[in-house]
Amino acid sequence: MQTPLQQLHAQIKSGSFRALARGITIVENELTGYDALLKDLNDTGNTKVVGITGPPGAGKSTLVNALLGHWLAEGLKIAVLAVDPSSPFNYGSLLGDRIRMNEFYTNKNIYIRSLSARGALGGLNAKIVEITDLVKEARFDIVLVETVGVGQSEVEIAGLADCTVVVLVPEAGDEVQTLKAGIMEIADIFVVNKADRADAEGLYRNLRMLVHEKATDGGEIPVVKTIATGKDGVADLSREIMGFLEGKGTNKMRRTYMLTEKALQIIRKIRMRDIDTDALAAHIGVEMGKPGCNIYRVTEEFLRQLHESSR
Amino acid sequence: MQTPLQQLHAQIKSGSFRALARGITIVENELTGYDALLKDLNDTGNTKVVGITGPPGAGKSTLVNALLGHWLAEGLKIAVLAVDPSSPFNYGSLLGDRIRMNEFYTNKNIYIRSLSARGALGGLNAKIVEITDLVKEARFDIVLVETVGVGQSEVEIAGLADCTVVVLVPEAGDEVQTLKAGIMEIADIFVVNKADRADAEGLYRNLRMLVHEKATDGGEIPVVKTIATGKDGVADLSREIMGFLEGKGTNKMRRTYMLTEKALQIIRKIRMRDIDTDALAAHIGVEMGKPGCNIYRVTEEFLRQLHESSR
Repeated sequence: MQTPLQQLHAQIKSGSFRALARGITIVENELTGYDALLKDLNDTGNTKVVGITGPPGAGKSTLVNALLGHWLAEGLKIAVLAVDPSSPFNYGSLLGDRIRMNEFYTNKNIYIRSLSARGALGGLNAKIVEITDLVKEARFDIVLVETVGVGQSEVEIAGLADCTVVVLVPEAGDEVQTLKAGIMEIADIFVVNKADRADAEGLYRNLRMLVHEKATDGGEIPVVKTIATGKDGVADLSREIMGFLEGKGTNKMRRTYMLTEKALQIIRKIRMRDIDTDALAAHIGVEMGKPGCNIYRVTEEFLRQLHESSR
Repeated sequence: MQTPLQQLHAQIKSGSFRALARGITIVENELTGYDALLKDLNDTGNTKVVGITGPPGAGKSTLVNALLGHWLAEGLKIAVLAVDPSSPFNYGSLLGDRIRMNEFYTNKNIYIRSLSARGALGGLNAKIVEITDLVKEARFDIVLVETVGVGQSEVEIAGLADCTVVVLVPEAGDEVQTLKAGIMEIADIFVVNKADRADAEGLYRNLRMLVHEKATDGGEIPVVKTIATGKDGVADLSREIMGFLEGKGTNKMRRTYMLTEKALQIIRKIRMRDIDTDALAAHIGVEMGKPGCNIYRVTEEFLRQLHESSR
């Protein structure tokens, strides 16, 4: 006899988008059984995660859109997780963009889910790792994770993705030194989008110089020019992504760092399970009224009482 | 026989700035004995904490400067904790500002300490609560905490301070609706600084209207006009602050919320003490290489092994 959760899991594996949507909701909101569901997953390694990140307005969603069309024509099965609040996948953008996406919303080989950026720093959904792990069960060829690049999130996305694409536009002139520190460390591929704009050539040239300077034994980080609205350069980008996934793929150090953070988060949660925040607040409210009160002693006393009562 | 830490504590109580500086360094960097030092504190309730917050460029530091001069003339003993990275107290500003502060740096009744905003969200030092608690031991009349107001930090400062002053300037025209949500909930006093600027009157009028609309049984939040460079309005501001501290003072709900967050942070730390992050990362590095790996199972297995080995 299967439990309802095991049934759901089996349906996700057999490719039901409806079951997948339900599973994501369970994981995202930590509904009953979410932890059992997660512990039941087995990564086959056959699904690759591609992260697309960059500043707001860099045209990430349009690029995702173009990649979807390209990969669909190659017969691939793709999931899109959009954590970018300004993404059209996220109902946050112009109507025109949304309509353009509609062709994909009804396609049997494409699953699209927008996720809120709530509860996490820097534009990432707090459960993005768990949700990506769940989506992998449904045997997609590629899971595309689109996030707006603001500091912290870039490091997380780089740990999550097997290949991280950083999209830039020539808005800040050609001054590559304005790039956020650390972006060289997380980019597996650079994209200069809106490459038809007059100032794009300067950005492209400077990026090429930068990746040349920072080249390692593994070679230089590729820089691809795209004009996503006209789909120019998308085939080049796809080739670079696929090449990277087959060749280098997954940076182990980044992956381990991200997973360690996730593990610490899980451990913290397990160890805080018996803490009743309301009771703690009430206890503090009473204690702080007394003269000579001290939050450090009050907290230890609360923990001691909790420990005694659980014996 | 006193331990060296108890000696330090006694020296702080007797008013040694040198001992206080050493104590703050111990707490800020969690050096040996920092938790014992904190557990030894006894808040007499005689020192009041005044928070000064507002956007960058609102003239908070100049205002703090003017208040220092005013209170010094009244014979008060004051500590300044500057967490604002752009504060001249924080060596981050123009030389001119810094020189102006020098008169206070050598005054026996004023202690100034700049704190980095590292390790905390929204411009607050992660140890600001602990450091403020320690500074209170040195029997100042007032501890002034200056922070740059960016989101989260404003809620924390409001929980920490007995009186929270929100400083605004007419930069965004007179559109009070551009005020961040939640600012009404944390402000005990509003300041319209640079009130000699042409567009200040509009901001002042709209703020007055807003506080009138949101007036409670406790009355309206006062709005004070200042020109801090010329010290105009500083006596008014001081009167409002002292009146608030003697009258309403400390919002209990905010204080309890902040202390509960601090208590949860302490508990998390205590319960994570036995987790060796390097060992966890190494364990994950090994496990994640195996087929069918799963971070949720790996983490639980790590915890189980840890539990067994500690028995």
